[in-house]
Amino acid sequence: MEDQTPTRKNNSYCKRKIVTVLTATLTDVAQQTRAAAQDLAGLSTDLKNQALESIAQALEAATPKILEANAKDCQRAQESGLATALYARLKLDATKLAGAIAGVRSVASLTDPVGSIQLHRELDTGLELKRVSCPLGVLGVIFEARPDAVMQISALAIKSGNGVLLKGGQEAIHSCQALVEAIQTGLAASTVAPEAVALLTSREETLELLNLDQYVNLIIPRGSNSFVRFVQENTRIPVLGHAEGICHLYIDQQANIAQSVDVAVDSKIQYPAACNALETLLVHKDIASDYLPKAVKALQNQGVELRGDAAVRDVIEMDSATDTDWATEYSDLVLSIKVVDGLEDAIAHINTYGSGHTDAIMTTDDQAAATFCSRVDAAGVFHNCSTRFADGFRYGFGAEVGISTQRMPPRGPVGLEGLVTYKYLLQGQGHIVATYAGEDAQSFTHRDL
Amino acid sequence: MEDQTPTRKNNSYCKRKIVTVLTATLTDVAQQTRAAAQDLAGLSTDLKNQALESIAQALEAATPKILEANAKDCQRAQESGLATALYARLKLDATKLAGAIAGVRSVASLTDPVGSIQLHRELDTGLELKRVSCPLGVLGVIFEARPDAVMQISALAIKSGNGVLLKGGQEAIHSCQALVEAIQTGLAASTVAPEAVALLTSREETLELLNLDQYVNLIIPRGSNSFVRFVQENTRIPVLGHAEGICHLYIDQQANIAQSVDVAVDSKIQYPAACNALETLLVHKDIASDYLPKAVKALQNQGVELRGDAAVRDVIEMDSATDTDWATEYSDLVLSIKVVDGLEDAIAHINTYGSGHTDAIMTTDDQAAATFCSRVDAAGVFHNCSTRFADGFRYGFGAEVGISTQRMPPRGPVGLEGLVTYKYLLQGQGHIVATYAGEDAQSFTHRDL
Repeated sequence: MEDQTPTRKNNSYCKRKIVTVLTATLTDVAQQTRAAAQDLAGLSTDLKNQALESIAQALEAATPKILEANAKDCQRAQESGLATALYARLKLDATKLAGAIAGVRSVASLTDPVGSIQLHRELDTGLELKRVSCPLGVLGVIFEARPDAVMQISALAIKSGNGVLLKGGQEAIHSCQALVEAIQTGLAASTVAPEAVALLTSREETLELLNLDQYVNLIIPRGSNSFVRFVQENTRIPVLGHAEGICHLYIDQQANIAQSVDVAVDSKIQYPAACNALETLLVHKDIASDYLPKAVKALQNQGVELRGDAAVRDVIEMDSATDTDWATEYSDLVLSIKVVDGLEDAIAHINTYGSGHTDAIMTTDDQAAATFCSRVDAAGVFHNCSTRFADGFRYGFGAEVGISTQRMPPRGPVGLEGLVTYKYLLQGQGHIVATYAGEDAQSFTHRDL
Repeated sequence: MEDQTPTRKNNSYCKRKIVTVLTATLTDVAQQTRAAAQDLAGLSTDLKNQALESIAQALEAATPKILEANAKDCQRAQESGLATALYARLKLDATKLAGAIAGVRSVASLTDPVGSIQLHRELDTGLELKRVSCPLGVLGVIFEARPDAVMQISALAIKSGNGVLLKGGQEAIHSCQALVEAIQTGLAASTVAPEAVALLTSREETLELLNLDQYVNLIIPRGSNSFVRFVQENTRIPVLGHAEGICHLYIDQQANIAQSVDVAVDSKIQYPAACNALETLLVHKDIASDYLPKAVKALQNQGVELRGDAAVRDVIEMDSATDTDWATEYSDLVLSIKVVDGLEDAIAHINTYGSGHTDAIMTTDDQAAATFCSRVDAAGVFHNCSTRFADGFRYGFGAEVGISTQRMPPRGPVGLEGLVTYKYLLQGQGHIVATYAGEDAQSFTHRDL
């Protein structure tokens, strides 16, 4: 592979790769990534970790080139007046890049999700069944103009034994190209084929990607709710993601008032743009006159705009909330508040308007908490804590590939385990089914090993 | 509930139910089933098992009525000339019905898939995370004209805490109505609301069912490949099923010839219409002249029609196989045979033409077996045994709700665990995320309990 090792002056390998990406059809690229992924699927943890180290080193070597490419994106973004928050995400500096490279190395330290034996059972003497975790194949990840995502996603894909087709926001195109070049250079010096990671560069390719169900096994869309919903509605490929995060906090009649104020404030203001931020506060009617004035004061102190139903406004003055509010993810310092008759009423409201993301109850009544946890239909149901804990890192998963609000697993915050599936391996000694059928049928032993 | 307990003379409760089903819109029915399912979701194992016993008793009490309804279906089927195999599935007699009722009771003895704790972790002192299995919600099951399926599916749904909308083949409509009446009668005498099980009766409702993603959480289609594919392509609801079962058996160069003949015969003829039956036999070129004559003789003795590629026909005379054969699920006593250059060639053929159902290798070379198991992309990858073992009962799952050939879990034969999902329950003591953020951020303990 020596001739593929690039120097800064003569980066022939990387040039060849980029040319391939730009001239080949997306189907060709996907086929190559799939072939690379099939080889990657069988690699040991050590070899995958070596590939991650090789990627980290190649990124370090390419740092000047990456920062130069990012400067080009940033200049264009400034000229086009990109919003400050988006610009902050787009901008890479040496420190941020070094942090992201450290992130690649930290993925190497995560437990390999591939090859774990989930079931081991003797069906009969000499006939043994194992269920073993294995990679999904090829991931299609569509993300915002956020160059650090390229490194994080590629590392998670390699670690889980999957190929990945990356499509970043158009504003970050030069950064993404420089990063993927470096990643492919790193892979070229490892056992993993460089084609395991590929970059798509046009919006048209995003649409085409959604049709590649022959080659792509999971789509992970990141970005706006409407974009995620668009993806969900326009592909037959499974989608890991969530279109909405309408999270609720219900203050039961037996709740610690001070804690309930703190948890409401934290859930709303700690990071209002996050999907696990609070959008609607539900308050038991018997506690409303005590709780609401305190909560409203604390929330307003943090600059939260409040909208209440009639019963809320009977207690304390604020703008009025309409049915539209109950169905809205503000993703901003806005909160709707409703007084409910009790636990059943709160659960009914949540199961009607919630998005199945995360909903919480504040109560000292364990029976009420148990009912709430059993009956609220969401990926996360919390008792006496902030909705903001709904997160893969906080759950201790080491990495988060997304949060899923679908019902079928994987549900909720998804770590590396969301990037693998399993297969059943059955090992026999010439066993045939006829032995276990008919009048003299032999019995299975079905003994877990 | 006493007034709802039916007698054979005055079955007013059941009459009311059927009228409801026939006059309400499907959305109303689905809403009622969903509401019933939400109550059912929180019930203890004992209460669900009592409901199953109550169903079994109601079915026993309704036996004459059910057999009468079935006789009506059978008469109509005979008049319309229904194929013998389909007629055999449609026909219920007292013995078959008693067997199905015993099946309902046996579901009660299966482990409850709901409420198992899959993860239990302390995030910090007093802040504990649990991942707990819970029901999916409402299942939509579309099945062939096979009355025993009504009982089996309803029992599995109740046990897993799910509501179910059933749609059986039109030829079995009277049988299905009588069975669902009895099941609802049984539920009416239990803690589970009768609306948890509902019957759809028209083809139009099947199409409408596929659009009810607000109320239905999993579709399980049973029937022809083309029907399953139609369902997969026409719903946003997750689908548990498989459109095709193109299973392969590869005879490696180091294989026990006698065993390889027996396994090929068993895989093909033990039940040719099953999805796990063999469709293509791949033979290593170095063993072809030894293996093929013996295998062909054994297969032809069992009436199997053989189609071979040119290399096969160089060894032994038979009809020729074309590319179409490699992509065909015969579901009949027909088998295509191909000579391959070796392991890689076999794996490439399987990963190109296979359906991801079940593929097997016969070899005494453990390294070749390991490569095959790692690289073949299928729900079941077998070594030295028949493809026909791919089955939930043979795997020891106690019940099988379907076989999935999708990549994402649940994959392969799916037992009761395929009818549940999980939620994350987080229990705190007023914990907020701000404590774990910023400069003085407290660390999580992330200690598994």
